[in-house]
Amino acid sequence: MKIDQYPSKLLERAVSEMSKLPGIGRKTALRLVLHLLRKDAKGTHALAESLLRLRDEVLFCKSCHNISDTEICEICSHPHRDHSVICVVENVQNVLAVESTGQFKGLYHVLGGVISPMDGVGPGDLQISSLVERVAGGTVKEVIFALNPTMEGDTTNFYISRKLSHLPSPETPVTMSVLARGVCVGDDLEYTDEVTLGRSIIDRVILKN
Amino acid sequence: MKIDQYPSKLLERAVSEMSKLPGIGRKTALRLVLHLLRKDAKGTHALAESLLRLRDEVLFCKSCHNISDTEICEICSHPHRDHSVICVVENVQNVLAVESTGQFKGLYHVLGGVISPMDGVGPGDLQISSLVERVAGGTVKEVIFALNPTMEGDTTNFYISRKLSHLPSPETPVTMSVLARGVCVGDDLEYTDEVTLGRSIIDRVILKN
Repeated sequence: MKIDQYPSKLLERAVSEMSKLPGIGRKTALRLVLHLLRKDAKGTHALAESLLRLRDEVLFCKSCHNISDTEICEICSHPHRDHSVICVVENVQNVLAVESTGQFKGLYHVLGGVISPMDGVGPGDLQISSLVERVAGGTVKEVIFALNPTMEGDTTNFYISRKLSHLPSPETPVTMSVLARGVCVGDDLEYTDEVTLGRSIIDRVILKN
Repeated sequence: MKIDQYPSKLLERAVSEMSKLPGIGRKTALRLVLHLLRKDAKGTHALAESLLRLRDEVLFCKSCHNISDTEICEICSHPHRDHSVICVVENVQNVLAVESTGQFKGLYHVLGGVISPMDGVGPGDLQISSLVERVAGGTVKEVIFALNPTMEGDTTNFYISRKLSHLPSPETPVTMSVLARGVCVGDDLEYTDEVTLGRSIIDRVILKN
């Protein structure tokens, strides 16, 4: 038996499939797979079935491209949400992050990534044209860009804002906004990076007496 | 939509099944599951199938209890391995660890854990009686205890060594040994804990001129 050769072909295959997941190396994969082996077979069946069902049956909302069990997702079809505001996010996790704040009651638009020439992601790979269509429709009053505060995020903001600047009509363009950048709540100014601290001074908020 | 509520029931189920794995929290589970969704469906099918096949078809060697595709594992049935030496280990990972050294050519015995009253693991939960039988058979000359150098490992060593001390016969008991304990190769003595350093002085090895 050679080094790193597993005692079972079945084990070897399970470990190599598991280690294809991001951030899961072969050692972790082995630990996870052996955990499944120690437990009831039901657990493994439930895991495998849930992954297969998700992969084969999940839909993406035709309007906002968020993951959904229905053609139009719960958020887009919700009668009490504000259909005149769209929050543009990179992915599903970011929808959950914004939702968890409880501060946003509008709709979302999931781009599926950000423009990143280094990773070979161009505007054509993202759900930008459908966002342009939604804004062109005329019911949207504001688009909030909630992309990650990185160079790629800023590039994507810039690209999309150019596309939307004359919509729905050049006379009454849609309002566009980005998330405020500044010091984190609970942070220590001493350890805040100078760019963020600088932005928080420029974008300071006037106190109301 | 409430906080921490996923936009899809299928997603929610996949995330909760995935997060049952050890060391995988809900955030990591979501990341892994969304990764599968972004990739080809084939990847998810291969992962699910490999887990199911492993769980349903894998065998444990009848002799050493290591994971195996056959009734007697490759190591136990190997004609060139030394069948008179048994290395007692806690689990499959430790078989792989010892194998990877290339320094051991005998057989293994996988206990499936160590005696740990705190975790409710008693001697009856481990593969100890089959080890006693193997040693009673008479072909085994030496038993090497390669359990983790912890209190539980030492307790298990002690328990098993008592069981084996009169086997195969009181006149010619089997030789028993434990892994050497001492400073790690490449370590700095300054940062070696005093118990380990103390052991390495007591168990010092005489240099041969």
